Amino acid sequence: MKYLKEIQSSKNALIKETKKLQQKKYRQQTKSYLLEGFHLVQEAVAANVSLKEIFINQRGLTEWSEWIEKNLTDYYLVSDEVLKTLASQPTPQGIVAIAEIIEPENEIELSGAWLLLDNVQDPGNVGTMIRTADAAGFTGVVLGQGSADLYNPKTLRSTQGSLFHLKVISEELNQFIPRLKQSGSPVFGTALDVKAKDYANIDRLENFALVMGNEGQGMTAEILAMTDQNLYIPIKGKAESLNVAIAAGIVMFQLIK
Amino acid sequence: MKYLKEIQSSKNALIKETKKLQQKKYRQQTKSYLLEGFHLVQEAVAANVSLKEIFINQRGLTEWSEWIEKNLTDYYLVSDEVLKTLASQPTPQGIVAIAEIIEPENEIELSGAWLLLDNVQDPGNVGTMIRTADAAGFTGVVLGQGSADLYNPKTLRSTQGSLFHLKVISEELNQFIPRLKQSGSPVFGTALDVKAKDYANIDRLENFALVMGNEGQGMTAEILAMTDQNLYIPIKGKAESLNVAIAAGIVMFQLIK
Repeated sequence: MKYLKEIQSSKNALIKETKKLQQKKYRQQTKSYLLEGFHLVQEAVAANVSLKEIFINQRGLTEWSEWIEKNLTDYYLVSDEVLKTLASQPTPQGIVAIAEIIEPENEIELSGAWLLLDNVQDPGNVGTMIRTADAAGFTGVVLGQGSADLYNPKTLRSTQGSLFHLKVISEELNQFIPRLKQSGSPVFGTALDVKAKDYANIDRLENFALVMGNEGQGMTAEILAMTDQNLYIPIKGKAESLNVAIAAGIVMFQLIK
Repeated sequence: MKYLKEIQSSKNALIKETKKLQQKKYRQQTKSYLLEGFHLVQEAVAANVSLKEIFINQRGLTEWSEWIEKNLTDYYLVSDEVLKTLASQPTPQGIVAIAEIIEPENEIELSGAWLLLDNVQDPGNVGTMIRTADAAGFTGVVLGQGSADLYNPKTLRSTQGSLFHLKVISEELNQFIPRLKQSGSPVFGTALDVKAKDYANIDRLENFALVMGNEGQGMTAEILAMTDQNLYIPIKGKAESLNVAIAAGIVMFQLIK
């Protein structure tokens, strides 16, 4: 039998405290963030991510009773109003949980394929790129300075849970790239310069890094100067460019062995 | 010298009438739609799309004076409040125009590469796929039943103007596919069935069609039954699937000759 408490009002102290996690600074202070919807919560549970508090409404409880029975030991039954207060979407999907931010290990294994994001600002793009990197078999994604917050609800939703499947690290790329290069992995940038190569002419690799830049401006000059080789995707039609997440998907699936 | 009228109030009759174009049924009734921002309007002008009315605020007028002088002959100077009323985004980008919906020609040339959308519901996905099809050198995109409206502001924004670069047609796929097949183009579906082939093992083609399905459910059974060959993208990590626009990008760039 579960221990079950009820919260009807969004003025409840715990709910008010939890709602603060919609702001980045509170997420950083408390090293925790909000997960919305059963899909993300299930992925977190499957990945042994520690959930501090769990809030479920009656509909969620009914729809997911079997999974809840099997996987959760302690949660709050909350009103639809409370769930709406905690969720970023107008129709919350039955559950919101407080998850613990996992600090990356000190010694990260640098082998494998890495996706590095240089100022990718749109949460949807960042989340989708993490999902795609997972699907392509990448080892990890590094969110460089200026990139969207991993724990933004829109980023989380776009990952579809892939943040629990591979390493996702927030670190300045000018620190990470030298370590990658020292480990022997070539670092590919994406830019149109005279020495850039058609991405389709690069042999497939096991160990490498691919850097994607900002939606409008592309990669910063500082990071461009650190790459071993820049790549471009030939545009055949009249489009000026590709969406950054689409470009990342095309190159990731082409490069990885 | 330009003819220039001013509209200060969003209660102005023309503004109230124009605002109705935010709804699909009015777009269909009047065969017109709203374009937001100078990038989309410039692409429309470059493609000789007829603009019925143009609304610009003071900031837009100042920032784009040279282009306006050269390209526009008749427009309204409107208050920020008026522009906000017409735009879908909280910070409208200086201009909103009423554009005419162009009916497709009766006899469509079916050669080349075609992207067919079977119930792709998200406007951002549909717009991004049109942009990617343009960049990959596709001839056209067919929005099948259940797919997001091309003239939804979010679809338009995601196309980045590519809707003016290639053919975009709304037509039922069960009508369009037989004509494509009759013209000799193979039609590839995307699905995981026992006979599906790895997309990377298909020889590049000039004339073909690729069908992408709904974000959650994939292609409908009816359309699946009409394809010549189904393709899949091998997933190497633990992601369950790829975003549909990412999958489309990967396969389009791989298949087209």
